[in-house]
Amino acid sequence: MQDYKIFELGNVVLQSGATIREAKLAYKTFGVLNEAKDNVIVYPTWYSGQHYDNEWLIGEGMALDPNEYFIVIPNMLGNGLSSSPSNTPEPYNLSRFPAVTLYDNILLQQRLITERFGIEKIALVTGWSMGAQQTFQWGAAFPDMVERIAPFCGSAKTAVHNFVFLEGVKAALTADASWNNGWYTAPPSKGLRAMARVYAGWGFSQPFYREKLYLQYGYSSLEDFLVAFWEGFFLNRDANNLLAMLQTWQSGDISANPIYEGNFEAALAAIKAKAIVMPGQTDLYFPPEDNEYEVSCMPNAEFRPIPSIWGHFAGGPGMNLADVGFIDNSLKELLAS
Amino acid sequence: MQDYKIFELGNVVLQSGATIREAKLAYKTFGVLNEAKDNVIVYPTWYSGQHYDNEWLIGEGMALDPNEYFIVIPNMLGNGLSSSPSNTPEPYNLSRFPAVTLYDNILLQQRLITERFGIEKIALVTGWSMGAQQTFQWGAAFPDMVERIAPFCGSAKTAVHNFVFLEGVKAALTADASWNNGWYTAPPSKGLRAMARVYAGWGFSQPFYREKLYLQYGYSSLEDFLVAFWEGFFLNRDANNLLAMLQTWQSGDISANPIYEGNFEAALAAIKAKAIVMPGQTDLYFPPEDNEYEVSCMPNAEFRPIPSIWGHFAGGPGMNLADVGFIDNSLKELLAS
Repeated sequence: MQDYKIFELGNVVLQSGATIREAKLAYKTFGVLNEAKDNVIVYPTWYSGQHYDNEWLIGEGMALDPNEYFIVIPNMLGNGLSSSPSNTPEPYNLSRFPAVTLYDNILLQQRLITERFGIEKIALVTGWSMGAQQTFQWGAAFPDMVERIAPFCGSAKTAVHNFVFLEGVKAALTADASWNNGWYTAPPSKGLRAMARVYAGWGFSQPFYREKLYLQYGYSSLEDFLVAFWEGFFLNRDANNLLAMLQTWQSGDISANPIYEGNFEAALAAIKAKAIVMPGQTDLYFPPEDNEYEVSCMPNAEFRPIPSIWGHFAGGPGMNLADVGFIDNSLKELLAS
Repeated sequence: MQDYKIFELGNVVLQSGATIREAKLAYKTFGVLNEAKDNVIVYPTWYSGQHYDNEWLIGEGMALDPNEYFIVIPNMLGNGLSSSPSNTPEPYNLSRFPAVTLYDNILLQQRLITERFGIEKIALVTGWSMGAQQTFQWGAAFPDMVERIAPFCGSAKTAVHNFVFLEGVKAALTADASWNNGWYTAPPSKGLRAMARVYAGWGFSQPFYREKLYLQYGYSSLEDFLVAFWEGFFLNRDANNLLAMLQTWQSGDISANPIYEGNFEAALAAIKAKAIVMPGQTDLYFPPEDNEYEVSCMPNAEFRPIPSIWGHFAGGPGMNLADVGFIDNSLKELLAS
C-alpha cells in the first residue's frame, strides 16, 4: 500500500553535468489545494528521512493543519523513494549514482509544484536539518515565489566543522571492507553500526546525555540506546543512499549555483521571504552561530534559537513535546503574519 | 638513544583482578630533586601521548622550570612505553592486555614517586586531557601528599557524552576487518584513518574550523589537515594500545576505587589540594559544565575556563601560544600561592 505518489521528471541534467534518466520525485500531500492556490506549504525531508518521518509536525490544530493548508512533502533525491542509488536502474545504480546538490533537489521540487499543481506562490517552506537547508535554498532560488520560510536546525551553507563531522561518519561506514566501494551484495552492517555510534555523540547534546534523557524514552541503558535507537536507525538504511545524501549535505550552499555564483551574502540578501530561523541552542553540528550570521545578512529574518538540551534533535522527529510546541508556535505566528 | 627510564614494578594486580607481570613504568624527569624534596611536580601524559609530547609546557622562565622544579612525567599504561599491549610479552600481549583504570595508573605512579625517589609531598600535579583526569585521581587518592592540582581540559569522571564520543572513535577503528579483534599482523590502517577522521570533528571546535585556523599552521587545505595532521597522528599509533587507553578513559572516575566506593561527591570533597581547574571554553568532549560541577564539590578549587576557540586543543600540545600563556600563568600563580 504505497502512501505516496511519483512525479515523473524525465531526463534531469544535474549541476555536476551527469544525467538521471527517467528521474522520479516521490511526494505526499496533505489537505486540499484551494481555488486561489494560496494555501501551500512545502516541507522537504531530512537526511535519510522519508515523507512519513515528517508527519509529526502535521495535524489538526497545529500550524501545519491539513484542514487549512495544502502541504507537500517532497522526498529528497537519494532517500530511497525519489531517485536514489538503491532504486535507479543500471547503469546509474549503486556507486554510479551521480553527485546531487541541494539546488538540484529544489529545481525538481519547483517543477512538481508548478507543473503538477500549477502553484505560483508558496505560503511557507519549512523543514528540519537538511530539510532546513532545502528551505533556505527555496528562499534564495525562488525569492518571488516563497512568502515565508522557517528553517529549523539547519544552515544555508554547510559549515566546515559540519563537513568534518560528516567526514567522520563517512569514514566509519566505509572502513567496513564489505562496503566494497559501494558494490556490496549484502548490507555492510558493521559499517552501518559504526556510523551509528559515531552519529550518536553528535545527534544529541552533552547535557542530553548528562541528564540521561534516553532513559525516559523506552531505552533501558546507554548501550540499549546505542543499539536500539542508533544502530537500528542506520541498519534500516541503504549505505549508498546514505553516502549520496551525505555528499549532497557536504556540498550544501545556497549560492553554489548560476544565480549567485558563490556569492553567499548576496544569496542571503536575496531571500525576500519573511523568515524565522530556529537553530537548536545545543546543536553540535548546526550550531546557532552559523544561523546568527546568516540572519544578519537576510533582510526579513528573525533569529530564534530553540531553548533545548536535545541538541540537533530539538528539531525532530517529534520526540520532545516542548520543542515541538516551540516550533509549532513559531510556525503559527509566521503563518499569521 | 632512549631518553627515558623504566621503573620496574614487579607483578602488579589491577583493579580488574588481572595481573601484569614484570610491569614497567616509563618516565622522564627534568631538573633536580632538592634536598628537602619539596620541589616536585608530577605531569602525567594524555591519550596516546608519550612523555616528549608533554615537553611544550616545560622550560626556563615557565611555571614548569627545570631550574627550580623536579618534574616527573610518568607515561600512562598502554601508551607504548609503559606496559602496553604492544610491548608486553606473551601471553598478555595484543588483545589479551588487561583492562587498566586511571586509579591503577596513579597507584603505580605513586610507587615511582615514593619508592624510587623517596618523595613525600608533591607541590603540583598537572596535565592535559587524560593527564587532567590522572591529576584529579592524584588529588583524590593521595589528598595528604598533593599540595596543588591544575587539571586542564579533563574531568574527574568521564561524562556519558564523552563515553559516547569514544564509542564512535572505537567503532570506526574496529569496523576495519583487518583489525581482526586485535590479532592483526599489519596495522589496520583504514580503521586508524577512519578513527582519525572521526576524531577531527571532536578535537577542535566549530569556530576553529569556521575561522579555518588550520591554514595558519602549515596545512594547505581542510583535506590536507585531515590527512597530514589527523591521519598521520593516528597511523603512528598502535591500534591495541589506542583501544587499551580508550577503555581506561571510558572508565575514568575518581571514586571508582576502594577508598570512595563510587561516592563521586565524597571523592571530590576529599581533594585537599589547592586547585585551579581549567576547561577549554569550547571543548566538545570535556565541556566546561562538567568541571563547573566538580569544582562546586571541591573545598579549595577555582573554576577557570581557557577563553579559546581551539576546543579540546586549548590544552595542548602547545600549538596555540595564547592558550599556552594562559595555562602557564595560571600554573605560576598556583605555585606561588
